[in-house]
Amino acid sequence: MTNLACAAKRYLLSILLLLGGAAFANAQGADQLPSWNDVQSKQSIMRFVESVSKEGSPDFVPPAERIATFDNDGCLWGEQPMYFQLLFALDRVKAMAPQHPEWKDKEPFASLLKGDVKAALAGGEPAIMDIVMTTHSGMTSEEFDQIVRDWMATAKHPKTGRLYTEMVYQPMLELLAYLRANGFKTFIVSGGGIDFMRPWTEKVYGIPPEQVVGSSGKVSFEMRDGTPVLMRLPEVNFIDDKAGKPVGIHQHIGRRPIAAFGNSDGDLQMLQWTCSGPGPHLCLYVHHTDAEREWAYDRQSSIGRLDKGLDAAADGGWTVVDMKADWKQIFAFEK
Amino acid sequence: MTNLACAAKRYLLSILLLLGGAAFANAQGADQLPSWNDVQSKQSIMRFVESVSKEGSPDFVPPAERIATFDNDGCLWGEQPMYFQLLFALDRVKAMAPQHPEWKDKEPFASLLKGDVKAALAGGEPAIMDIVMTTHSGMTSEEFDQIVRDWMATAKHPKTGRLYTEMVYQPMLELLAYLRANGFKTFIVSGGGIDFMRPWTEKVYGIPPEQVVGSSGKVSFEMRDGTPVLMRLPEVNFIDDKAGKPVGIHQHIGRRPIAAFGNSDGDLQMLQWTCSGPGPHLCLYVHHTDAEREWAYDRQSSIGRLDKGLDAAADGGWTVVDMKADWKQIFAFEK
Repeated sequence: MTNLACAAKRYLLSILLLLGGAAFANAQGADQLPSWNDVQSKQSIMRFVESVSKEGSPDFVPPAERIATFDNDGCLWGEQPMYFQLLFALDRVKAMAPQHPEWKDKEPFASLLKGDVKAALAGGEPAIMDIVMTTHSGMTSEEFDQIVRDWMATAKHPKTGRLYTEMVYQPMLELLAYLRANGFKTFIVSGGGIDFMRPWTEKVYGIPPEQVVGSSGKVSFEMRDGTPVLMRLPEVNFIDDKAGKPVGIHQHIGRRPIAAFGNSDGDLQMLQWTCSGPGPHLCLYVHHTDAEREWAYDRQSSIGRLDKGLDAAADGGWTVVDMKADWKQIFAFEK
Repeated sequence: MTNLACAAKRYLLSILLLLGGAAFANAQGADQLPSWNDVQSKQSIMRFVESVSKEGSPDFVPPAERIATFDNDGCLWGEQPMYFQLLFALDRVKAMAPQHPEWKDKEPFASLLKGDVKAALAGGEPAIMDIVMTTHSGMTSEEFDQIVRDWMATAKHPKTGRLYTEMVYQPMLELLAYLRANGFKTFIVSGGGIDFMRPWTEKVYGIPPEQVVGSSGKVSFEMRDGTPVLMRLPEVNFIDDKAGKPVGIHQHIGRRPIAAFGNSDGDLQMLQWTCSGPGPHLCLYVHHTDAEREWAYDRQSSIGRLDKGLDAAADGGWTVVDMKADWKQIFAFEK
C-alpha cells in the first residue's frame, strides 16, 4: 500500500467513524445468506461454518481440509420438468437429424423427431442412454465444449422461458460464496455429465472445471491430420451417482468432504460418506416443497426422488431445507 | 490496513530507500530459481512465465487458465534403480508374507521372499501387476493411506540411504513454487498410483490431493459394521501413462495445460497435447545426464526411457534440461 493509499484509507475510516459504531459493526457482520430466512437450516449452516473456521475452536479444521461437495441437478439448479441435460440431448437430436436420415425409422429418435418425447422416453433407461450417447460422442472434446456453450447461451427453459444458467438457486449461490469466504473449497459432485457442466460452472457458480466431478464417457487421444485431439467415444467411463459419488470423490478429490449438499437419494451415499468422517461435518438435503415458486416433489418423483434420503436425514440429524419456508427467494429473476 | 500499519509500512519503505535503489531492485528481482544455472532452459522458463503473467502482454493468460502439469517419477523425484512405488510394493510383500503362507510356492512372490528381485521381476509386466495389485488392494482407502504414510516416514532409498521424500529435485521444487507465485495452479500427472502419491504431495511439493492425477485401481463403496468404507479392489481403473495422460488431464482437470513437464516417453502425449494448444505454451523435458550426482539414462533405459521424446523435443523446439549442466544442485541434501 502506498502513502497515498494509506491517506485514502484513513479518509474512508474517518467517514465510517462519523457514520457511527453501529454502521461499522453492521458492515462487519453483514448477512452473507440474505435469501435465507433465519430458521434452523440457516442457523445450522452458520454454526457449522463458524465452528470449523474459527482458530482455537475445538472443531477447527485447517483450510486445506475444508472440502464441500454439492450435487448439481435439483441442488444448485432446477431439474424439472426433466433433467436439463436431457433437454439438451433432445435439442441435439433435432440439430443432428439432417445428418441421420436413418433416424426416421429408428426409436427412440423417430418419436423424438415427431415431437413425441413421451413415446421416445417410454423405452426407459436404455432409450435415454441411447439418446445421450449418440448426442454426446463422435466429436472432439473441444467441439463438444462449444456445442454446450452455444446451447447454454440460447436455449430456454420450457416453463420459465429463462436461460438454463438463470435456473440456479439464489440461496445456494450465496451458500457457495459464504463457504469460499470462509476458506472452503467448493466442488460439484453430480450424476450429470462432467463435460456438460464444466463449460459454465466457473461463470455461474464460481466453481472451476477442475472442481467438477460428474459422470463421463470415455475419450481417446488421437492424431487428426497431425494434430492431437481427444475424441469422445460412445462408451460409459463412470457413473457418478449413488454409491458412485463417494467413489468419484475419492478418485477426483482424494479427501473426504466435511460438508455435503444434495437433494435426492442419488446423493445419499455422498452424505453418508461425509457424515461418517472422524471430525466435524455437515450434511444437508434441499427438499423441494414449493410448488408455486419452483416444484414440490420427493418420495414418489421419478426425477430427483428423495425417499431413503429423508429417512436417513431424520435418523442422522442432518439438516433439511424446506425450500418454501426457508428461502426468501429461489431464483434471482424473481421479483 | 490500520493507520499504525501504514506508519510501519512508511518506516520500512524509508529504510529500504536508505539502503539504496540497488538493494531495492535486488529484493524485487531475487532469483526464484537459485538452483538453476543461468542457461537456456532457465531463460526459456522465465521468459514464458513472465510473458503469460504480465498484464498487457500479448501472451497474457488469465490466472484460472495457468495450468501446469508435472510428471512425478524422474521429473519431480528419482526413479532409479527402480520406481519407488515398486520398492514400496516389494516391502509390502515382505510385510504381508506371514499372512500368505501360499506365497512360498507362488511366483513372483516366492523369488521375492528369497530376496531374488531380479527373478521375481523376470515375469515382466504381468508379474509387476500381480505384485502391485496384491499389495495395493484388499484394504480400505484409509488403511492404505496410513500404510503409505508409515512407509514414507521410515523406508530408505537403497543407494543414498535417504527417505524417499528427500529424493526430490531441488530445482523442480523451486520451479513449482515459482509457477505458483505467478498464479499457476500446479498438478501432478503421473503413471504412478494416485493413492500412493496423495498422502505426501502436499507436504513435499505443495500440491494438494485434489491436484494429483495418476493411475488407479477400482474402489467400491461398502458398509462395514454399519460404517461406510471405500474398499480397494484388485482391478485396474485407469492407467495414467502415455496416451492416458491427456485423457487423465481431461477427466480430472477439464482444461488443457499451458505448461507440461516430463522426463520420458510416457510423458510424450501430455507434452504434445499441451504444446498443440491455441495459446502460449511451454513443454519441457528433464534429461537425466548426471551419472555422478544422480543417474544418466535416456534412449536405452527400461525405466524412464526417453527416446521418441528426445526427437519430438528437437522437432518441436521444446525445452530440454541437461541435469548435469543446468542444475547447480539436484537434491537438497547435497552439500
